[in-house]
Amino acid sequence: MSTDHSRPPAALVMFPGLTDQVIAPTARARLELAVDLVAPTAFASPGDLTGSVCSTVAVLITGWGCPRLDGPVLDALPALRMVAHAAGTVRPIVSEALWDRGVVVTSAAAANAVPVAEFTFAAIVMILKDVFAVRDRHRTVRGREPVVDHTRMGTLGRTIGIVGASMIGRLVIERLRTLDVDVVVADPYLDDEEAAELGVRRVGLDDLLAVSDVVSLHAPLLDDTRHMIGAGELARMRDGAWLLNTARGGLVDTDALTAEVVSGRLRTFVDTPDPEPLPVDSPLYDLEGAVLTPHIAGSLGTEVSRMGDLAVTEVERFVAGQPPRHPVVRADMDRIA
Amino acid sequence: MSTDHSRPPAALVMFPGLTDQVIAPTARARLELAVDLVAPTAFASPGDLTGSVCSTVAVLITGWGCPRLDGPVLDALPALRMVAHAAGTVRPIVSEALWDRGVVVTSAAAANAVPVAEFTFAAIVMILKDVFAVRDRHRTVRGREPVVDHTRMGTLGRTIGIVGASMIGRLVIERLRTLDVDVVVADPYLDDEEAAELGVRRVGLDDLLAVSDVVSLHAPLLDDTRHMIGAGELARMRDGAWLLNTARGGLVDTDALTAEVVSGRLRTFVDTPDPEPLPVDSPLYDLEGAVLTPHIAGSLGTEVSRMGDLAVTEVERFVAGQPPRHPVVRADMDRIA
Repeated sequence: MSTDHSRPPAALVMFPGLTDQVIAPTARARLELAVDLVAPTAFASPGDLTGSVCSTVAVLITGWGCPRLDGPVLDALPALRMVAHAAGTVRPIVSEALWDRGVVVTSAAAANAVPVAEFTFAAIVMILKDVFAVRDRHRTVRGREPVVDHTRMGTLGRTIGIVGASMIGRLVIERLRTLDVDVVVADPYLDDEEAAELGVRRVGLDDLLAVSDVVSLHAPLLDDTRHMIGAGELARMRDGAWLLNTARGGLVDTDALTAEVVSGRLRTFVDTPDPEPLPVDSPLYDLEGAVLTPHIAGSLGTEVSRMGDLAVTEVERFVAGQPPRHPVVRADMDRIA
Repeated sequence: MSTDHSRPPAALVMFPGLTDQVIAPTARARLELAVDLVAPTAFASPGDLTGSVCSTVAVLITGWGCPRLDGPVLDALPALRMVAHAAGTVRPIVSEALWDRGVVVTSAAAANAVPVAEFTFAAIVMILKDVFAVRDRHRTVRGREPVVDHTRMGTLGRTIGIVGASMIGRLVIERLRTLDVDVVVADPYLDDEEAAELGVRRVGLDDLLAVSDVVSLHAPLLDDTRHMIGAGELARMRDGAWLLNTARGGLVDTDALTAEVVSGRLRTFVDTPDPEPLPVDSPLYDLEGAVLTPHIAGSLGTEVSRMGDLAVTEVERFVAGQPPRHPVVRADMDRIA
């Protein structure tokens, strides 16, 4: 930690209403020891950031609501040396100009990955017991008759297909070890040695689709992953299998998925649809074989403070001259979320 | 393992339709090496069991549908020395007469505990994100407006109260270690040393109720635990807290719980209501703050084979003269589920 007189000027840039949740009191106290906050609350709009107060700012702690750091916004930050993003993907805020400036960028994706993995794991257990459809039917029949088709239920011996051994994918794999399930993983960047370390079987996407009772998506949305799950891929999935998407809606051809769920052949749990939200007339809102949630798998409520804690740690390390633990560089943009 | 000529006569006693699920092919092969099955399929009704074929039976592999082993049923089994129950609680099948006979009784409660703990853990994650109510509202508003009250959501830093450090309670505690939550446990049989080993804080029930965001019941239903959660206990719970019951409905005063959920002060996830099922006019079927499922946390589908595997292992041990791993004795009836 630097001594007090060397605290670099810094600013918070996120929705102001979020600041106290993201930077909890203990993190705030640590932050104020490490940097000199030039404004007590957060900036959010590009207009805020172009004020003269920003001319000395060396460190930005950013979050949801931060504008893209480009053009006039970046011009107003001539002293900027570090951006600690207290949220998941840095895609909405980085720019070629920012990379060109050589600014150090860190991401709290590792902290945001935790609740997504918790949610995904819990969703896998719940859908293997068909809890959402069972609750719907239990409401309708009001307990007067059996509502459960037992033969398709239960976690034991099921095969879970993880598409993408990403940060989140790996945390889900870790949690799946607490179940008696087989885990197969498709990821072009995963080699056999790493797969063995993860305790999973590496397969191609086509094989994964053919053997999995649940296919869970954890790939980044890139040009070559858009609609990676289309009609052909869905057709390879087992009858009654679930497609679980807590990643990015654009990975899936929504029309093709909707057709498979409407027909009753496949089931789906989608936290991140495409478009988001789905149109009001999408049958996925109502079908028994579909569970839609409005992008809640990631950090919410108490969970956003985990991202703030990580960002503040990165700021402390930067001020102390240490390398970041979670750096993001320009080349990462081709492969991460 | 005994040699072939010493295989004791044995019979399967459970719903015949369940047998092939409970005793999967590999377990069946192991069982047929250990014992001489006097009938290829299962007996279920008391009438079946009083036939003369039972006179030599030394070992029963029992399951759901097995009648109480008492009176004429027990009289028809003069050679009975062991009952390996391939289900959870042995309460529906044991009798004073069975205990008096000194028959060895084993339970597959340890195997049935696994899916209950998996389900309970997943339910905790899902309700801390308010997934069921959020899905309901998302269906109604069809994505046209925010449906999420973020401030009450998220797992991080929550307090989970486990009532009963039972077999299932301990498996839930183990899984809760994968979350950043505080776990408090109330159990009259738990001492501080054991609590420390479990990594939890031992508290009285009143304290547990006052501090927990989720109260999860894992106590047995006994004379002195019936309605252990009544109006007074519910009144101690925090506003917005969840009561989660995957144990036994009789632990809770349903009328008092219903009043608290109708008022919107508490929320509840009940897999095991009292009565079971709830009357058709129970408001719990419809309320946003209530999740009712029809007793599906325990072994279902593929999961019942885990109980069969355990029972067959106990039979193998008995035949080999080894002590059971999961014995149940008369005195246990005062404290276990």
